[in-house]
Amino acid sequence: MDYFYGPGRNHLFVPGPVNIPESVLRAMNRNNEDYRSPAVPAMTKTLLEDVKKIFKTTSGTPFIIPTTGTGAWESALTNTLSPGDRTVSFLIGQFSLLWIDQQKRLGFNVDVVESDWGQGANLDILASKLAEDTAHTIKAVCIVHNETATGVTNNLAKVRKILDDYRHPALLLVDGVSSICALDFRMDEWGVDVALTGSQKALSLPTGMGIVCASPKALEASKTAKSFRVFFDWKDYLKFYKLGTFWPYTPSIQLLYGLREALDLLFLEGLDNVIARHARLGKATRLAVEAWGLKNCTQKEEWFSDTVTAVLVPPYIDSAEIVRRGWKRYNLSLGLGLNKVAGKVFRIGHLGNLNELQLLGCLAGVEMILKDVGYPVKLGSGVAAACAYLQNNTPLIASRI
Amino acid sequence: MDYFYGPGRNHLFVPGPVNIPESVLRAMNRNNEDYRSPAVPAMTKTLLEDVKKIFKTTSGTPFIIPTTGTGAWESALTNTLSPGDRTVSFLIGQFSLLWIDQQKRLGFNVDVVESDWGQGANLDILASKLAEDTAHTIKAVCIVHNETATGVTNNLAKVRKILDDYRHPALLLVDGVSSICALDFRMDEWGVDVALTGSQKALSLPTGMGIVCASPKALEASKTAKSFRVFFDWKDYLKFYKLGTFWPYTPSIQLLYGLREALDLLFLEGLDNVIARHARLGKATRLAVEAWGLKNCTQKEEWFSDTVTAVLVPPYIDSAEIVRRGWKRYNLSLGLGLNKVAGKVFRIGHLGNLNELQLLGCLAGVEMILKDVGYPVKLGSGVAAACAYLQNNTPLIASRI
Amino acid sequence: MDYFYGPGRNHLFVPGPVNIPESVLRAMNRNNEDYRSPAVPAMTKTLLEDVKKIFKTTSGTPFIIPTTGTGAWESALTNTLSPGDRTVSFLIGQFSLLWIDQQKRLGFNVDVVESDWGQGANLDILASKLAEDTAHTIKAVCIVHNETATGVTNNLAKVRKILDDYRHPALLLVDGVSSICALDFRMDEWGVDVALTGSQKALSLPTGMGIVCASPKALEASKTAKSFRVFFDWKDYLKFYKLGTFWPYTPSIQLLYGLREALDLLFLEGLDNVIARHARLGKATRLAVEAWGLKNCTQKEEWFSDTVTAVLVPPYIDSAEIVRRGWKRYNLSLGLGLNKVAGKVFRIGHLGNLNELQLLGCLAGVEMILKDVGYPVKLGSGVAAACAYLQNNTPLIASRI
Amino acid sequence: MDYFYGPGRNHLFVPGPVNIPESVLRAMNRNNEDYRSPAVPAMTKTLLEDVKKIFKTTSGTPFIIPTTGTGAWESALTNTLSPGDRTVSFLIGQFSLLWIDQQKRLGFNVDVVESDWGQGANLDILASKLAEDTAHTIKAVCIVHNETATGVTNNLAKVRKILDDYRHPALLLVDGVSSICALDFRMDEWGVDVALTGSQKALSLPTGMGIVCASPKALEASKTAKSFRVFFDWKDYLKFYKLGTFWPYTPSIQLLYGLREALDLLFLEGLDNVIARHARLGKATRLAVEAWGLKNCTQKEEWFSDTVTAVLVPPYIDSAEIVRRGWKRYNLSLGLGLNKVAGKVFRIGHLGNLNELQLLGCLAGVEMILKDVGYPVKLGSGVAAACAYLQNNTPLIASRI
Repeated sequence: MDYFYGPGRNHLFVPGPVNIPESVLRAMNRNNEDYRSPAVPAMTKTLLEDVKKIFKTTSGTPFIIPTTGTGAWESALTNTLSPGDRTVSFLIGQFSLLWIDQQKRLGFNVDVVESDWGQGANLDILASKLAEDTAHTIKAVCIVHNETATGVTNNLAKVRKILDDYRHPALLLVDGVSSICALDFRMDEWGVDVALTGSQKALSLPTGMGIVCASPKALEASKTAKSFRVFFDWKDYLKFYKLGTFWPYTPSIQLLYGLREALDLLFLEGLDNVIARHARLGKATRLAVEAWGLKNCTQKEEWFSDTVTAVLVPPYIDSAEIVRRGWKRYNLSLGLGLNKVAGKVFRIGHLGNLNELQLLGCLAGVEMILKDVGYPVKLGSGVAAACAYLQNNTPLIASRI
Repeated sequence: MDYFYGPGRNHLFVPGPVNIPESVLRAMNRNNEDYRSPAVPAMTKTLLEDVKKIFKTTSGTPFIIPTTGTGAWESALTNTLSPGDRTVSFLIGQFSLLWIDQQKRLGFNVDVVESDWGQGANLDILASKLAEDTAHTIKAVCIVHNETATGVTNNLAKVRKILDDYRHPALLLVDGVSSICALDFRMDEWGVDVALTGSQKALSLPTGMGIVCASPKALEASKTAKSFRVFFDWKDYLKFYKLGTFWPYTPSIQLLYGLREALDLLFLEGLDNVIARHARLGKATRLAVEAWGLKNCTQKEEWFSDTVTAVLVPPYIDSAEIVRRGWKRYNLSLGLGLNKVAGKVFRIGHLGNLNELQLLGCLAGVEMILKDVGYPVKLGSGVAAACAYLQNNTPLIASRI
Repeated sequence: MDYFYGPGRNHLFVPGPVNIPESVLRAMNRNNEDYRSPAVPAMTKTLLEDVKKIFKTTSGTPFIIPTTGTGAWESALTNTLSPGDRTVSFLIGQFSLLWIDQQKRLGFNVDVVESDWGQGANLDILASKLAEDTAHTIKAVCIVHNETATGVTNNLAKVRKILDDYRHPALLLVDGVSSICALDFRMDEWGVDVALTGSQKALSLPTGMGIVCASPKALEASKTAKSFRVFFDWKDYLKFYKLGTFWPYTPSIQLLYGLREALDLLFLEGLDNVIARHARLGKATRLAVEAWGLKNCTQKEEWFSDTVTAVLVPPYIDSAEIVRRGWKRYNLSLGLGLNKVAGKVFRIGHLGNLNELQLLGCLAGVEMILKDVGYPVKLGSGVAAACAYLQNNTPLIASRI
Repeated sequence: MDYFYGPGRNHLFVPGPVNIPESVLRAMNRNNEDYRSPAVPAMTKTLLEDVKKIFKTTSGTPFIIPTTGTGAWESALTNTLSPGDRTVSFLIGQFSLLWIDQQKRLGFNVDVVESDWGQGANLDILASKLAEDTAHTIKAVCIVHNETATGVTNNLAKVRKILDDYRHPALLLVDGVSSICALDFRMDEWGVDVALTGSQKALSLPTGMGIVCASPKALEASKTAKSFRVFFDWKDYLKFYKLGTFWPYTPSIQLLYGLREALDLLFLEGLDNVIARHARLGKATRLAVEAWGLKNCTQKEEWFSDTVTAVLVPPYIDSAEIVRRGWKRYNLSLGLGLNKVAGKVFRIGHLGNLNELQLLGCLAGVEMILKDVGYPVKLGSGVAAACAYLQNNTPLIASRI
């Protein structure tokens, strides 16, 4: 059964959940099996090894948790911090807001650094806070690598540098939900202490796995962290890692096989090529937006996101109508504007297992929708701009040369 | 395993096999079962009833044969004609050529009416042949409704009219492989005696079923037709129809369930809406071709095909290179030029379960490829032309209004 | 890829995860989609209505949580209780032990009522505790309906009666993980305040959904319960229920479609017929065990479980070797003995989408394994006993009469 | 949608179509693709090489034809023989009867050697016919390796020996539909000129591919064979083999990927192990039949089939009722008795991707059905006999040792 059937493919351009590759769907199309047989641990072992590669870490310890990104946040925070701990956290959009909200509900003393929605994390303020914090009351810097609501990518290398400059021991906790496997992410090099993502984002899987990776320092912190946690306690995982059975509770067999295939595809394409592909699609999208005469919600180039573009619409247009129209007329799924930017932006997700022509179909659709809702777009203009770039920059498919 | 993996979806725009809807893939994802149990005949009964609707016939008798389109041709011919019988057959492209070749190999006396590739069947010659044939030596008029190699649609209503005008009793045998379920087709109204299609075309299924529908007159002819046939003999089917077990040999369970779902989708959308959608996508494609400054292989508007467009390229370009490039660089599958038009045309198939944005992605890809191979296309021009039309003419998706 | 491939089907008889029906696998074999489009809420609405039927409640409020059974436990407890609250909890096997352990870690004052493993909850002690508790210090009675480790089913009607007899206001929290959809379960009639299950048990889905259902009294309690909770907080769900968007964070689209189909299958068969089928398979299994001359771990008939049978082996046999052997030689997956009964019992899960001949294949396999490991079983004896019962008691398949 | 839904798995024990392994279902769960791209020929090349292994030939030329077993018969005959040619053909059951019928319809002069149904081919008569035929009027010996209707396996080595003894040049055409990939089959060693099978039999795929393999002698014969053929003409395949594109008409992409996986599974298990497994399951079945006090339709041990057992029922029982009852009550699919043995035998297919416990479930089901229909079977007796054998003879699963 399909709800609201329309002919042809759904064009899925929300910034997650994203398109699942056919071979991943195939890999998951299987019956349950006994997760205590030798097969599941044998597979899990390879997964835990390989999943580290997407974080670019060799020293980290990954946890594959049957939960969502929200649960992964809770896992990251509760295992490393204690109630009342001071965190510095950047409010730059809806997802950082939700994470901050969670931090507050978890009982931390959240030092919120707010920016305009469309700007990145204010790192100058971070620097000054760290400078002042000679007593090291700041226990963690919490930052969303890529704010999915506004299409803003923060500069994590710079965050690390600032922490190093002040020799500040705060943990660096990073939400990589809409960045890992799509944007350049270097857990070890950037000294990230906990990084996390969700299966339904750039990994291109169904929802259901929160993947959290902890540095040795984070693991050490977890031994004394007093935050309340039971389901999300890393201790249970670590115990079963030692036993070699890996799972404190039943995993989703299907998602494990899906993850295996998803990782195989990433490595087959090459993680650097995957990142380059995202950069290419992000750039093409921004060129289209420019050609349409519209503004990127993201205010400066340094913050441009290669996984999602939030497009500002003129005040006389309700961006929600654009999204509705896409779904109703063109079987196109775009992202809504959320909270402060509701009605003001619509979002084009361009992450995961996606290629040039898929994106161009979406951009053509957006052009027609813009016209539908009364914006005087020149039809073809965005596609032309994107094509001009892509035609020059798309490599041959490696396996087909 | 995938051969030659590339990221994202394959953009399948060959004029068959075409994209299979997800729900059809799901329906076919099943184990074998006993085809002699009550379940398979119960389903078959509904299929035989419903499949008549796609031929727009109430008096016809359908045969769902585990074969390809080529086998369906053989079934149509051998069951209705005898060796040495005179057929009038129109050579207008590669597929009509292959059918004519088969007719010759099957021992018929084929009266070939040739046109330039890019033109439709020459019906004036048909008229004169029928006029002359007062002895009724012509036993069948064989015509390809839509020539897939050149994108030419023949006017079947006119063929019928000519036959009627001369009160000629010849059978009318129609290859509807790339038309049925996509173009307007009216078996009863047009007095078609045998119509046939293949599952991998507008029905949007895998290859493996040739569907042949016989008029009462064709069934009558089969009683005396002396052409050699065993596997393809309708008699065996008719025998099992009477028994209520339906299958003289083992059918593909999976394709039956797939056909059930494919028909359900067609009826859900509405066969007339499906045809209108093909008309819309065909028109949009032709507008793009025009905007690119290229010529349609089809020489007159009356023959324009709404399921496939063959595009002529300038002499300095090898159209095969366009196809190769599409596959190698953009994961786009276009149709080659075949035989007489090899190197001269490439083909865009726009049939089956397809929507506007899928097509626009393809058109954008073609633009980039044209540039890749040195044709001075204005990027965005074709998409712009197609969008201008589609934005005005695409209805809301009925289920989502 | 399969790890450790063997020919033919895997015979999955662990008491969860269980076999997924083919039609449910098909239903889940789909791409992601935008969960904020109108389609997902429309489906969710029907799911929330229909899922109440498997709890036999009209007044309850269900929560479909992207988590495991362990997470569902945490959801049930933290939303209704406050740290330090006294719970009465029955330790009768490994899963009740784990739940008690969780209750302790969650900070409750757990009053453990222990029984021998193989016995049911000691309800006399419950009665005396309630009798003494005139001050109503007991805030909740926590009970596992069916202890999966020992195959013991507790009598919930009796628990309710005792609570009623003493007019005790304690909440009744029930782990129905290996009972709901398989054993008779009546949330409203038995005054259960929170009931929960996991998708991979009798619902016959993959792991990944914890389904929790709260009575009005439990919902009321959640308003004042002080236990720490964020991810598992019902409040977030209730907020989104009101908004009509239903999901505080991204659900698994695939599991939702799977749940839709799983419920449809349950209702098609009829919930009472499903329960009767489990009773039949449970009885057949116990007759086989008896015929083998082995003992059921469950000490009295009143506690016999119709979803899992734990079989005691003679002291000279290691039950783990039986499980290993089943997997290595017969592609049969049996349940290990856990904790106190490790090495002493093996378990046959007979829950979920299962029929008579599947079970008989398993029983035949167990007989061969018993012989393999040196137990002097009379081959065929267990199957004969089971067949004698099943041949007399298996109804015709309703749809095939 | 399922027709006539029943809980749990269908137990598919008709002698084809047989159970498809999950990994093969997965492999086939894919969209169409362009069969003229480099991917399909690349895969086809490996398939044509590997498919020779299941025939045990290095010199043969395989044809993978989009048809059924019936079509494969026609392909074998029409490509090697001319109308009027004398064939010696053995009538020993329904499928040999159908093949003989086809041979007659195809215009051959069929010299039928009939045996009682339940006996093998009468090779003494073959010998005497060959002895007499010094003029070599016999052009082909046509033999069904395994008669699926009666469970009789003919001795092909002996047939070859007789041909050699008389230095007779007749072609040896073998229907291996229910033998190849399950029984010992040696095309080269036995000098088989054309061997054929269907995908839905021991290859454990859906119906839709007839696989025919021709010896050099058969290929040579095809150059002069005058039988009428177009769709089934090997010439077209050979032409496309030379071109390296392999397909004269559109293949089923899905079946090709399925065949790839099916072959991989066969080679992973080891073809000799696959054959040994079939021998084991066949033997176990026959022991059960004996224990039930019933007779094998096959009259002598030398003809016992390891892929299908036809069981004779007492005259007061209608074997069709056994089949109906299996389906209606136990979700068990058994084979009907056909033609001469209709009502007298039911058939247990034990071929394809099947293991011991699957078979034992079936045997237990048959016992209950026998009791259902009034046969005084001792419940458990057949399973006991089968278990006694299997427990001694089933090897550990190689990958799990």
